[in-house]
Amino acid sequence: MRTLHVIGIGAGDPDYVTTQAISALNDTDVFFAMDKGETKDDLVALRRLICDRFITEPGYRFVELPDPKRAAAADSAAYRDNVNEWHAARARLWAQAIQDELGPDGVGAFLAWGDPSLYDSTLRILERVAEHVEFDFDVVPGITAIQALTARHRIALNDIGAPVLITTGRQLRENGLDTDAVVMLDGECSFLSCPPDTRIWWGAYLGTPDELLESGRVGDVGDRIVARRAEARQRHGWIMDIYLLRA
Amino acid sequence: MRTLHVIGIGAGDPDYVTTQAISALNDTDVFFAMDKGETKDDLVALRRLICDRFITEPGYRFVELPDPKRAAAADSAAYRDNVNEWHAARARLWAQAIQDELGPDGVGAFLAWGDPSLYDSTLRILERVAEHVEFDFDVVPGITAIQALTARHRIALNDIGAPVLITTGRQLRENGLDTDAVVMLDGECSFLSCPPDTRIWWGAYLGTPDELLESGRVGDVGDRIVARRAEARQRHGWIMDIYLLRA
Repeated sequence: MRTLHVIGIGAGDPDYVTTQAISALNDTDVFFAMDKGETKDDLVALRRLICDRFITEPGYRFVELPDPKRAAAADSAAYRDNVNEWHAARARLWAQAIQDELGPDGVGAFLAWGDPSLYDSTLRILERVAEHVEFDFDVVPGITAIQALTARHRIALNDIGAPVLITTGRQLRENGLDTDAVVMLDGECSFLSCPPDTRIWWGAYLGTPDELLESGRVGDVGDRIVARRAEARQRHGWIMDIYLLRA
Repeated sequence: MRTLHVIGIGAGDPDYVTTQAISALNDTDVFFAMDKGETKDDLVALRRLICDRFITEPGYRFVELPDPKRAAAADSAAYRDNVNEWHAARARLWAQAIQDELGPDGVGAFLAWGDPSLYDSTLRILERVAEHVEFDFDVVPGITAIQALTARHRIALNDIGAPVLITTGRQLRENGLDTDAVVMLDGECSFLSCPPDTRIWWGAYLGTPDELLESGRVGDVGDRIVARRAEARQRHGWIMDIYLLRA
């Protein structure tokens, strides 16, 4: 039976890789990698760095999977529909690649930035790949950007005994902030929609030499985050950032 | 200057340890460890296993910190007050231990189960320790029980583009379930308060040989989880479990 590892490689710092991930990396014949468009060069470089550094017996290879275009979405419902179609298209391409590239007892892997469970589509797509080709798979957890953010700011994620919401920029704009929240996937600086007294801990390129950190009241540091974010995004061609908000 | 590492050692499986954590472990002279009462034996054993396995040059030592008793709490507000007092008492003990056990350039460490940012008091207490003794510190993120849960069930944490709440059993009972939620620190099987159609993914002793997993509708598997949980807790003398709920 073909086996697939879905490996969380952590959120930026190669040293976030776990020993379980290192074992799975060393067990892998073929790494399936998605083309991530403009972020491609840096992310491909990080993947290759991690493989170079932690795989003791070279012999593995990378197979690049083409990535079908995703339509722009007007609202949350349209967003989910588009994502669904995009996943179905990906699943067909992945199934073909697994059949073509992996022998009947071969071991493949998908490397997920951060952790495979968090705003990552690999597991959902694999569920559909299973409609086309037979395989077994396991999941190796990774350090998420949330853990990287709190570690670099040296803060707790939650207030004592209190809940914290993991959410997106879109959700924050649509629903406001009624509990402490960590916001991911926000290309639009949605924290600016919060009252100026809201506290924010922001980080970009966490765990990398390009890391940026800011913290304070949104009213005090919000504009500076917007400016640093725009400047860094232009310089690198891409940005991954995340922030924690406390009302 | 004294240095302290606050090291997330992951949620159960020693292979969840990151290479960054391994570097920090090897950099440490003195491990400060809290007495966790009934869970003590297994947790102390896991800490020692991780140190034995990943530290290449022995020479480190463990210092056990006595743990002041915490009063029982009637509600969330009383809970926070009690926790506050308990943290202040701990901070005084820790400051004394750091002064007594670490030389002026010594390196100490606190090992946090899972990740130091998540329902863990180490960082909050250290903030208060700084009122008594001078030190520098850094935080090494770890694999949380949340990542372990989703990895072992091979599921995504969030629905596509949707938020997910990290919360406690107490909060779930007080506020109900209005968004997907992952529930920690629940000694009372609070999922039973959810409608029977709620889906649950439950795990205990995640990543260890004693791991237990259950999933399904609360109406179908709720009673079985209660029974398995009670049986396991009695057998081990302690339990750490976590679950994800989807409405």
